[in-house]
Amino acid sequence: MEFKSQIELFKQLKESAGSHSPSMSTLMKSFENFSIKIDACFLSNPYATELFFSKFSEDVIRTNDIVKFLEYYPSQNDVIAKELSKALNIESDKILIGNGAIEIIQSLVNDEGVKKVMSILPTFSSYYEFVRVDTEVVYYYLNPEENFRLDVDDLIESVKINKPDTLILINPNNPDGSYIEQSEIERILINCMELKQVIVDESFIHFAYENESLDLVSSIGFLDRYPNLVIVKSMSKDFGIAGVRAGYGLMNAKRVLEFLSKGFLWNSNGLAEYFFNIYSTEEFRNQYELVRKKYIVETKKFIGTLSEIAEIKVFPSKGNFVLIQLPVSIDVDYFVGFFLFKYGIYMRTCSDKRSLENGGFIRLAARSIEENEYVLNCLNDFFNNHEILD
Amino acid sequence: MEFKSQIELFKQLKESAGSHSPSMSTLMKSFENFSIKIDACFLSNPYATELFFSKFSEDVIRTNDIVKFLEYYPSQNDVIAKELSKALNIESDKILIGNGAIEIIQSLVNDEGVKKVMSILPTFSSYYEFVRVDTEVVYYYLNPEENFRLDVDDLIESVKINKPDTLILINPNNPDGSYIEQSEIERILINCMELKQVIVDESFIHFAYENESLDLVSSIGFLDRYPNLVIVKSMSKDFGIAGVRAGYGLMNAKRVLEFLSKGFLWNSNGLAEYFFNIYSTEEFRNQYELVRKKYIVETKKFIGTLSEIAEIKVFPSKGNFVLIQLPVSIDVDYFVGFFLFKYGIYMRTCSDKRSLENGGFIRLAARSIEENEYVLNCLNDFFNNHEILD
Repeated sequence: MEFKSQIELFKQLKESAGSHSPSMSTLMKSFENFSIKIDACFLSNPYATELFFSKFSEDVIRTNDIVKFLEYYPSQNDVIAKELSKALNIESDKILIGNGAIEIIQSLVNDEGVKKVMSILPTFSSYYEFVRVDTEVVYYYLNPEENFRLDVDDLIESVKINKPDTLILINPNNPDGSYIEQSEIERILINCMELKQVIVDESFIHFAYENESLDLVSSIGFLDRYPNLVIVKSMSKDFGIAGVRAGYGLMNAKRVLEFLSKGFLWNSNGLAEYFFNIYSTEEFRNQYELVRKKYIVETKKFIGTLSEIAEIKVFPSKGNFVLIQLPVSIDVDYFVGFFLFKYGIYMRTCSDKRSLENGGFIRLAARSIEENEYVLNCLNDFFNNHEILD
Repeated sequence: MEFKSQIELFKQLKESAGSHSPSMSTLMKSFENFSIKIDACFLSNPYATELFFSKFSEDVIRTNDIVKFLEYYPSQNDVIAKELSKALNIESDKILIGNGAIEIIQSLVNDEGVKKVMSILPTFSSYYEFVRVDTEVVYYYLNPEENFRLDVDDLIESVKINKPDTLILINPNNPDGSYIEQSEIERILINCMELKQVIVDESFIHFAYENESLDLVSSIGFLDRYPNLVIVKSMSKDFGIAGVRAGYGLMNAKRVLEFLSKGFLWNSNGLAEYFFNIYSTEEFRNQYELVRKKYIVETKKFIGTLSEIAEIKVFPSKGNFVLIQLPVSIDVDYFVGFFLFKYGIYMRTCSDKRSLENGGFIRLAARSIEENEYVLNCLNDFFNNHEILD
């Protein structure tokens, strides 16, 4: 297939995947001898992936225990919650295990009593896409010119005016990486106690920090004081195990029980249960802490060097990704196709993201130090040589 | 731990697992050096498990592709449905992929417009447990004295009187194994066209047959004619891969779209996608057909020999399990604990199953020919030696 037709077909696949990226297996089926060098769509810490797979290989593959994990039913939801509670240091009855965070999101926004949702744009699209037909969604817009920084007072004002029953915050926000300090989160919670729920999605929280020692931050500590707080957490980003489907929600125990009474019985799977079991051990979490901090340090450096490229605007980020903005002269979907087939770099266009449709926004995942260097080199090559396809 | 205390603890674990069996991993955590010889709770074709794992080992473990399946997001629901449609020979837009059949069940009985459910007892408890608080459930009882055989005319009469919006049939029925011939299913469908949905759960249909060549039977062919028909299918029983979580629902395309609009985006996982991919190849399905029939033949033989034990009543079954009834003198939960710790056989008590609470009912899974023989020998040993614990 020719270069140009490849880019065209890619754009079509992107379109049919809706507001998400075409999966790796879809791409592999569509392009002969397709391989990418760097998946800069995929938001994960490669060092944690390495750590997980080395343990997995030892525990599950070498022992041939894989058969056991795939053959038998996983434990019921509350049994896995008990394991996970050791890692989170909260009561297990506040934990609802999900088949990925996406199942928790689906359940929260489809729940009875959800009539009006306030979503902050840009955002992860499922939050507004999965609502029922009769649920109203109001949007609160972050401003690129203010680096997508949330003005908490203005948001509180908007909540008072719009009176949603559900407020959704992603912290750090996807896809721009803006971070709301924990003291600010509490200020929002104090002012939103009348809402049915304030959802704080912490899927990227392991990459955020408020001090120089890069200690873990979280809103978990607020759960006791604010019973309408719900924390959503995907483990896919921390460990690069999206295919395992490990996620959870934290909320008041009564609400967990309500969900369990309607299902969520064996909604996990054998390997997700294995993951939660090792994550519940202090030894594994200590090993993880090292690679978590290593990755943050490298990500900071990557974003710093990226900012030196004059042609693009780079937004500040506390996620494991960074939002960049292309010059107006470049078509963003073309640019993404070009990088895919010319350099083997798979970038995430944001042209399908509400509020970022125009403006040439691309989200770049931070990868290993070598991969980041390759991405930087290719960007420099592109802009220095003006390689616009003829 | 002493034999008696083991039985006591086991009875407690059973209680806290509600209407399901304690999982293998729960049992292993609770009893030191716990191992069972035969899991006669676990409903699966061991020959198909062998077939699957031999392929899995070749494709996924030896190649180290396991990393790929666990690291990346699974494909979206419709992509996996396209693969599966090749195996089922129906349009992919009628397929909703589930994280196990249980997710489909949860969605169907929780759906908007479900106000009154008719469930046939005995049944798989999730069907009535997962309904919303304000949904009414009416029960239609099968009679042990008629071998749990469904009287279709009487059922149709009962539907006309009770006017449910949802009728649930499991075929063959779990836990008694009674089978409704396809012509009878159609007679029900013809008479239930005004219902919102008629759910036919075919999770055990691969073990049923209507002719001597043991060809696959199914109600899939009725989907076009009866748009309110929904077929639920777990693959756990056919292949012994409950930890993989592979199930699906078949229904009219409009309803699939309604579900997809509310979620179900990445509700599968990497290994379930792998399973559906190989299941979609004719080569694999041809290999499976051989072990499917082999297992049916052996199961028929097992049930036949079991019927010769004078002390128990054995009900006819077209599932891969058989319901037996103990003499009134024996406490069923004690019996199950005794078999677990004395013989290493894990049986499924039905004392937690609505309509089977009393009467000493136990469900026994058919296993490999050697395992079946061991179960038969232990039953004979028990009854011949009257080994009631002192």
